Amino acid sequence: MHPVETRLRVRYAETDQMGIVYYANYLVWMEVGRVEYCKARGFNYRDMEREDGAFLVVAEAACRYLAPAQFDDEVVIATSLLESRARMIRFGYEMRHAVTGRMLATGSTNHVICGRDRRPMRLPEKYLRYFEVG
Amino acid sequence: MHPVETRLRVRYAETDQMGIVYYANYLVWMEVGRVEYCKARGFNYRDMEREDGAFLVVAEAACRYLAPAQFDDEVVIATSLLESRARMIRFGYEMRHAVTGRMLATGSTNHVICGRDRRPMRLPEKYLRYFEVG
Amino acid sequence: MHPVETRLRVRYAETDQMGIVYYANYLVWMEVGRVEYCKARGFNYRDMEREDGAFLVVAEAACRYLAPAQFDDEVVIATSLLESRARMIRFGYEMRHAVTGRMLATGSTNHVICGRDRRPMRLPEKYLRYFEVG
Amino acid sequence: MHPVETRLRVRYAETDQMGIVYYANYLVWMEVGRVEYCKARGFNYRDMEREDGAFLVVAEAACRYLAPAQFDDEVVIATSLLESRARMIRFGYEMRHAVTGRMLATGSTNHVICGRDRRPMRLPEKYLRYFEVG
Repeated sequence: MHPVETRLRVRYAETDQMGIVYYANYLVWMEVGRVEYCKARGFNYRDMEREDGAFLVVAEAACRYLAPAQFDDEVVIATSLLESRARMIRFGYEMRHAVTGRMLATGSTNHVICGRDRRPMRLPEKYLRYFEVG
Repeated sequence: MHPVETRLRVRYAETDQMGIVYYANYLVWMEVGRVEYCKARGFNYRDMEREDGAFLVVAEAACRYLAPAQFDDEVVIATSLLESRARMIRFGYEMRHAVTGRMLATGSTNHVICGRDRRPMRLPEKYLRYFEVG
Repeated sequence: MHPVETRLRVRYAETDQMGIVYYANYLVWMEVGRVEYCKARGFNYRDMEREDGAFLVVAEAACRYLAPAQFDDEVVIATSLLESRARMIRFGYEMRHAVTGRMLATGSTNHVICGRDRRPMRLPEKYLRYFEVG
Repeated sequence: MHPVETRLRVRYAETDQMGIVYYANYLVWMEVGRVEYCKARGFNYRDMEREDGAFLVVAEAACRYLAPAQFDDEVVIATSLLESRARMIRFGYEMRHAVTGRMLATGSTNHVICGRDRRPMRLPEKYLRYFEVG
């Protein structure tokens, strides 16, 4: 499947005294990317939590920083499903500068599906196809 | 009653590209101050939420910025109870540079007591004295 | 002049354990609103800092919280210039739920114009008209 | 060398609507850990930037989340120097629950030393020993 693209503009709040985006904020952008991924695939992650009590709990996150993003830059986040099983989902992200196309950062997150009790569970039936679980 | 003092050290994450602490972070510091206020008065705010289902929902916040805080500065937050009623609590804050004593910011927050259903409620009986409600 | 409207979608990162947006994040949204205000009036705040060395340093901020914003809500921020002088600018903000139109919060920020040395200065000539100064 | 330990208390601001600490905040805690690491080794990272114009720019970050941290938990961060060369520094982190000792998360960050012009440079002479560069 094609990656899902979403755009955001760098906030002043996201910069630090180096004059560039603080490194933890790229993980927030990855979250924005995966929420948008869900929408593009046909469902709202919000409903998955609220109605079906299934939470994508982060088990691992990694990011490589290639070029700094700066205040007011527009950033394009391309989110892909790297791997999916009934109990684990893995996303990949590419973050580029919207105007120059320069790659700013790449990353990935692994998620365990958990229930309202925070214990691991299988992805509810109806989400299997959204996440392309065979 | 005397104000309750707590200390924190400015994080790099809290700075912005002006080289000073981003203005929204002072509201986070006020939260740190009021959690510590509760402890000094004899209870944990965490338990007030968990065990008694009473939440201090913020209804108003204000901050005056007098001098910039910078990365690695130690800041002293003095938190006072400005007003308290069974349904509303008001805190005041003074944030000073720990070494120079310079006033960095002053602020206040108003809180409505709400239950787990997010509707206003009266402060549970046992908290009346902690908040000096007559 | 009409207020300038901008939209954003609530991020998971912006929520707290009450299940609503953490109160300090509304000040970040105000920043998003005023950056957009500048664009709508014909200039980029980024350039005002970079090219003209003029910074809108926050001197006061206030927010009233009327109804909670939640994850994935779309929020409309209407930003107005409340007051402007050569050395001081004041913005007002109304934040509404995009779908229901419900007012979520109102706020204001006061800014002192400062130079690269962080000392107060007059607004550079070319910005007087953008901020409708006298 | 022994890891350097520092402690912090989980802020309400750091939680999200899952009722646990939002995943990006662990990277902020790693920053707190490495600033403290520098102090324990005999210098302030702040001075390294200010006086010597040397910046530890993050090139990679990774985190494994083992157990959730919650509001008001005290967390112990143990920071180690995993690798160090004149142009690259690598830190490792272990974050544990202070009371139970339970491992919450482990992580690492890679840093490139950059100058005020944001271009890679060699670590200034006087820092070689602090970072145990042979």
